[in-house]
Amino acid sequence: MRAAVWYKAKDIRVEDRDVKDVQSHDVKLRGAWTGICGSDLHEFEEGPVLIPSDGPDPFTNQEAPLALGHEFSGVVEEVGSAVTRFKKGDRVVVNPLITHGEKPPAYDIYDGFTFVGLGSDGGFADFAVVDEKNVYALPEGLSLEEGALVEPTAVAVQAVKEGGLQAGQSVAVFGSGPIGLLTIIAAKAQGAKNIVVFDLSDERLEKAKAVGTTHVINSGKTNPLEAGREIEPEGFDVSFEVAGVEITLNQAIKITKSRGTVVIVSIFPKPVSFDPMDLTASGVKITSTLAYEPGVFQKTIDLMATGDIDANEIITSRIELEEIIDKGFAALTSDKSQAKILVKLSGEQ
Amino acid sequence: MRAAVWYKAKDIRVEDRDVKDVQSHDVKLRGAWTGICGSDLHEFEEGPVLIPSDGPDPFTNQEAPLALGHEFSGVVEEVGSAVTRFKKGDRVVVNPLITHGEKPPAYDIYDGFTFVGLGSDGGFADFAVVDEKNVYALPEGLSLEEGALVEPTAVAVQAVKEGGLQAGQSVAVFGSGPIGLLTIIAAKAQGAKNIVVFDLSDERLEKAKAVGTTHVINSGKTNPLEAGREIEPEGFDVSFEVAGVEITLNQAIKITKSRGTVVIVSIFPKPVSFDPMDLTASGVKITSTLAYEPGVFQKTIDLMATGDIDANEIITSRIELEEIIDKGFAALTSDKSQAKILVKLSGEQ
Repeated sequence: MRAAVWYKAKDIRVEDRDVKDVQSHDVKLRGAWTGICGSDLHEFEEGPVLIPSDGPDPFTNQEAPLALGHEFSGVVEEVGSAVTRFKKGDRVVVNPLITHGEKPPAYDIYDGFTFVGLGSDGGFADFAVVDEKNVYALPEGLSLEEGALVEPTAVAVQAVKEGGLQAGQSVAVFGSGPIGLLTIIAAKAQGAKNIVVFDLSDERLEKAKAVGTTHVINSGKTNPLEAGREIEPEGFDVSFEVAGVEITLNQAIKITKSRGTVVIVSIFPKPVSFDPMDLTASGVKITSTLAYEPGVFQKTIDLMATGDIDANEIITSRIELEEIIDKGFAALTSDKSQAKILVKLSGEQ
Repeated sequence: MRAAVWYKAKDIRVEDRDVKDVQSHDVKLRGAWTGICGSDLHEFEEGPVLIPSDGPDPFTNQEAPLALGHEFSGVVEEVGSAVTRFKKGDRVVVNPLITHGEKPPAYDIYDGFTFVGLGSDGGFADFAVVDEKNVYALPEGLSLEEGALVEPTAVAVQAVKEGGLQAGQSVAVFGSGPIGLLTIIAAKAQGAKNIVVFDLSDERLEKAKAVGTTHVINSGKTNPLEAGREIEPEGFDVSFEVAGVEITLNQAIKITKSRGTVVIVSIFPKPVSFDPMDLTASGVKITSTLAYEPGVFQKTIDLMATGDIDANEIITSRIELEEIIDKGFAALTSDKSQAKILVKLSGEQ
């Protein structure tokens, strides 16, 4: 089969690769669509980050070279002897998160994790073989293309849950990239009132408008704290930091109302400075989010199936597997108007 | 009357001062004991911090020079015409916190505040005149000396509340000064199991032992994270940062268990560096605490009256008002074995 295989930073090759054998609890699916994630880009640019490259991954026993891709949907091609929940022809989406599964879902991930498509062969391939427990049925009315959006949307739905967001509350989102956009969409689904998005790129802010945010602020052109206070004089109930830099974390803390919550959604590449007095003087709490609980993944599918969450607007490009470097990674790096790029595989669309 | 009056940094004078007139809602009390707080020391060393010195305080309409002292007890000498809850001879303690009182207690303080004894004349004086609503009855069995400990103890009881501490949970306390010691005592009252205290001073750690902490670790002699993990391999449920420095905040974050809580109790003098990934990788939340809600002040009195909280052990010295500089502020600066120094006033003891 064809697969986009990570060898080392800047070295991803679209080449022929054997499909893994189907074990008793495995589901083999023919890939339909796979999204390019920011973490795929990090692995391409400066990896390995999560990819096991100096010995097998303890969860998967695989190591590089590996086929990337963890946001994917497809159609079941074959199932292992012990699989009862799926059959050939079923439309499915993969929850790529792999954990020990020994603790309740809210705690489990903090004991360690990897992903299908980072710790093992993933979805940038014509076929993928994954454990049955990582496979979720795609409901009627949800396309395979939308199926490829479930995973990043689940990140946003989990972030909204972590923030304790309630209907009618106000939301600030720092960063209008794919996860920022999905956070807007998930906050809307949760009934948020004012949703204000801050970014430095007008192109990205246009996307935020397109997904239905109520206000956009270009922090490079307007003082974000002053502009935010004009919209919500007492501050925002919940702020989401989705930019991953020092200045936006501090802005998020300062723009949150007394006793409100800041949710760190970003993966920060390095330590940052902040003033603990900004917390003491406001009672603002800081929490964070990492991936999603299995129940949140299923809830995300349900919200997408009912139309409460419509993530289609974040798709900016659809490309062939052979174009993954030039029209995928390179485009995401150079073109601020890009949000989610989907790679088309050989399965039915 | 005698009073210790703040004029400017390094200039506190014990001198004769007029007592304020008693207004209709005021209670005039003859001071018994007044504790020296770390914030008094800050005002002495490098103030003004909270003291109004370039115009009247918006809450109190007073400005420096002012009699300091906000941890105090006394006996009612006179009440205003509208006061019904107190009469001459009642033993009382002052809740010095002054807020707008326009929002629910958990939110109110974040709209601004000052204290009797910082924004107005306070308890380092033979008499004090305070609004009735800042006066709380001292129950039978609670001495006037213990009454002077209610205020700092309420800070600790509020911190334990903010941390959501439950009986049977484990606690890490960074900093074994007066508030650290009271946090230990309040955590014990809340049913904490293992309570581990970290400090650089063996003298201070001895005090922690005396108030009943289960473990002490000198972070200058032992790796605090390793030593803490030996006691609680999965980390601590709630950590209290009571040292106010960068390294202990980071240690507090790292030593807290997945999904646990760090409570910032300290007033940090400057921004600090931390790694947001320490939160993302653990789900640890950061919250903070500022003073206390009125209900927590009353609860603190109740817990002290029943003996569930015994704060007496933190008293290391009792001095006369005239000794407040040499045996008060100077001793707190130079002598690590000092925790709470009480100043004796002219009222009955």
